[in-house]
Amino acid sequence: MNFSIIRYILFRVLEFAALFLTLPCLVALIYREKAGYAFVIVMIGCLLIAEIGKQWKPKSNVFYAREGFVTVSLTWIILSIVGALPFYISREIPAFIDALFETVSGLTTTGGSILGDVETLSKCVQFWRLFTHWIGGMGVLVLIIAVLPLSGGYNMHLMRAESPGPTVGKLVPRVQSTAKILYGIYIGITLLQIIILMVAGMNLYDATVLSFSTMGTGGFGVLNTSIGSYSVAVQIIFIIFMILGGMNFNVYYLLLVARKPKEAWKHEEARVYLLLFLGASLLIAWNIRGYYDNFALALKDAAFQVTSIGSSTGFSTTDFDLWPEFSKAILLVVMAIGACAGSTGGGFKVSRVMILVQDMKKELLRVVHPQIVKKPHLEGRPVDDETANSIHSYLIIYLVIFLVSFLLLSVDQYDFTTNVSAVLANLNNTGPGLHAVGPTCNYGGYTVLSKLVLMFDMLTGRLELLPMLILFSPRTWQKY
Amino acid sequence: MNFSIIRYILFRVLEFAALFLTLPCLVALIYREKAGYAFVIVMIGCLLIAEIGKQWKPKSNVFYAREGFVTVSLTWIILSIVGALPFYISREIPAFIDALFETVSGLTTTGGSILGDVETLSKCVQFWRLFTHWIGGMGVLVLIIAVLPLSGGYNMHLMRAESPGPTVGKLVPRVQSTAKILYGIYIGITLLQIIILMVAGMNLYDATVLSFSTMGTGGFGVLNTSIGSYSVAVQIIFIIFMILGGMNFNVYYLLLVARKPKEAWKHEEARVYLLLFLGASLLIAWNIRGYYDNFALALKDAAFQVTSIGSSTGFSTTDFDLWPEFSKAILLVVMAIGACAGSTGGGFKVSRVMILVQDMKKELLRVVHPQIVKKPHLEGRPVDDETANSIHSYLIIYLVIFLVSFLLLSVDQYDFTTNVSAVLANLNNTGPGLHAVGPTCNYGGYTVLSKLVLMFDMLTGRLELLPMLILFSPRTWQKY
Repeated sequence: MNFSIIRYILFRVLEFAALFLTLPCLVALIYREKAGYAFVIVMIGCLLIAEIGKQWKPKSNVFYAREGFVTVSLTWIILSIVGALPFYISREIPAFIDALFETVSGLTTTGGSILGDVETLSKCVQFWRLFTHWIGGMGVLVLIIAVLPLSGGYNMHLMRAESPGPTVGKLVPRVQSTAKILYGIYIGITLLQIIILMVAGMNLYDATVLSFSTMGTGGFGVLNTSIGSYSVAVQIIFIIFMILGGMNFNVYYLLLVARKPKEAWKHEEARVYLLLFLGASLLIAWNIRGYYDNFALALKDAAFQVTSIGSSTGFSTTDFDLWPEFSKAILLVVMAIGACAGSTGGGFKVSRVMILVQDMKKELLRVVHPQIVKKPHLEGRPVDDETANSIHSYLIIYLVIFLVSFLLLSVDQYDFTTNVSAVLANLNNTGPGLHAVGPTCNYGGYTVLSKLVLMFDMLTGRLELLPMLILFSPRTWQKY
Repeated sequence: MNFSIIRYILFRVLEFAALFLTLPCLVALIYREKAGYAFVIVMIGCLLIAEIGKQWKPKSNVFYAREGFVTVSLTWIILSIVGALPFYISREIPAFIDALFETVSGLTTTGGSILGDVETLSKCVQFWRLFTHWIGGMGVLVLIIAVLPLSGGYNMHLMRAESPGPTVGKLVPRVQSTAKILYGIYIGITLLQIIILMVAGMNLYDATVLSFSTMGTGGFGVLNTSIGSYSVAVQIIFIIFMILGGMNFNVYYLLLVARKPKEAWKHEEARVYLLLFLGASLLIAWNIRGYYDNFALALKDAAFQVTSIGSSTGFSTTDFDLWPEFSKAILLVVMAIGACAGSTGGGFKVSRVMILVQDMKKELLRVVHPQIVKKPHLEGRPVDDETANSIHSYLIIYLVIFLVSFLLLSVDQYDFTTNVSAVLANLNNTGPGLHAVGPTCNYGGYTVLSKLVLMFDMLTGRLELLPMLILFSPRTWQKY
């Protein structure tokens, strides 16, 4: 392990953390809020440590996959701790474990909160809370790659470890250009949502922070009723942008940069993703139609909850925990599948499920016609054995983490439904679960042990399992 | 598809069904029960159809894997229907769907019942109910292979499709000899249990039928309290024989036939299986110690429930649905893992889990040391890629069946916990679940649709997924 290069990148990360913290400082200035001093302290602290640490140059440029994984997981852990400090110092979240949970939930774009009341937070603290979604959505290392002139092989290793999906979609040959294009699209769609929300009557502050939350597929809101108190028109705007946040960004690249609308239209993962939402929304709308005056309203709420859970955002317009079992079952399955690879969303990812389903068909065919060998395909290309195998391993590791987390949560006070849905909602970075962690409740009632387990799940889910796990392998820490 | 050979074997199966039905006829004679006429009718019917159908000789001896799978699944479906008729004709289970559910549950050694009161059944009906566990435990086609002089390649294909586990343990080169040895061991241990239970004071009838239920890892009992009303000594006898039923029969072969006690002692799957039970029992005993006068009693009940659920038997001595969440969570995990391959037990199988865990370690190692290639091992031998891949496919198919069954059950009236545990308990052939299908409840409250789903799950679980599924593939039914 080349520790010196990891250390160097981590100090650069602190520099960026300081940069991010200037924004809530500005908000505090505008609204003349005392809580702003917490951000100033942490910002100055980060800047000082980063400037001193940066002088300590790396001894070697050796950078392999394992350095990439360790750098990414340590980056996220450090950012979580730094990001939690303003909540704690400003006393708006008095317990540090809760401040940390809220920050991990923010950065990993989970959106499950420990706060019962989010409306009493000051403007700058609220801004920071929702801005963490936006930072975490595309990833901080992807931003560093886009902005800094880092050369050498490590761009690719970092990108691979931080980007969601079974294969890394290099849009263009250079990793740095890919990162720039991704952030460009991300900023563009976020600005578009802010403008549309303001046209629909929302003020600049709310439109901005809620757009951060939507495009990062996070789920933190500014009202205790999440999105339930806004007009139907605004809710529909959110539905559209939640879908956009969970969409594979390759589609935008094909549409906006490469100008290949035909290829974008044929994108298989995007099609399955949209069809899945449509099917699930219709089934749920039919199932809950008795609760509403007309089918259109039922469909609106069904579509909102499906896109919110499926894109792993986690906003809500109604308490879906009161819906019939069938609707809740569909939501849980949609939650487990999750969004597209190459999006800001979480979950198992649509393309992984597509490959697994093809593997299943392949196995059935093998029994009937042993002479036919068929490989799974994605986007018109055969999936190589290494990728297929790594998806199998992903499934196995996912299940093991799920079961162990579920066992550990069971020591706590809550029931089976709460615990299963809590693990799913955190491992898939969705946010709300069922029963005691349903959309009208929060994670504040769990003990410290359970909160630590759920934080681990959020980070593991966001970083696609391996980076967090190899921190625990003694082999990782061996010197070369 | 060579339909003629399948048809021929199915008529032979009916012959064996008639043979099995003589036993409850005898019981009815001894106890002078009127219900016996139901068995006589069905027996004569089977015999007549079999004798006529047998004359219709197969046109070709072509027999590949797909003929094996189709024969096995049709055998089990026909046996289920035939086995249900006496329950229905005798009016002791008035609804045919319930009689069918009870028979499928019996043959697949699941042991989940639709009966609220099992003590009012006549002796012969009760005998048949528990005898189906014994028939299904080792498999009826394995019996046919052992007894009939079927030659040609199809022995192996039938054995492979009906025996549980990732690889077929041919104990000796000839498949027929393997089948004979397996049945010899099975009969021997069953007789041993009958004798020991009688020494402990049980009458011949109860000892016999409960030994059928134990060695088949079934779970039907003769009392409404399952095993709870028997003495602690008798309960401990059941614990031991449930462990024996879920043990890989290779171990008995090594011990009793091959006389290689050292190899038996080193059997990896058996060791993990026993350690898993020991660990789970101790954790649960510690968790429920407050409910009992002393730790020994808590450990006895914990060990009983763990071995019962883990071996996929499903007896109970206490209502574990009232235990704390942590204990129930452990039971569900133990249920999902299940018994050993090559046993009469169900579940995912210990050896499959062992290989998956090694795959997970392999993937973590691959990131840290990409140059090291490590294969999973089992019983001292490397697992070939085909087996490893088929285990991955098994996991995928298992999850898909689990999710679809769960969605379909959710349409019914019960809650999340009931539905999840019901699917797990039926797919793994365990029997009791939690809440509305807990150890003191039964499956009678589900609708016909849900019962059909659960019957499919039981058969699919017992036949290790593929045989039932390929019935639904149109390719299977193509002519050569």
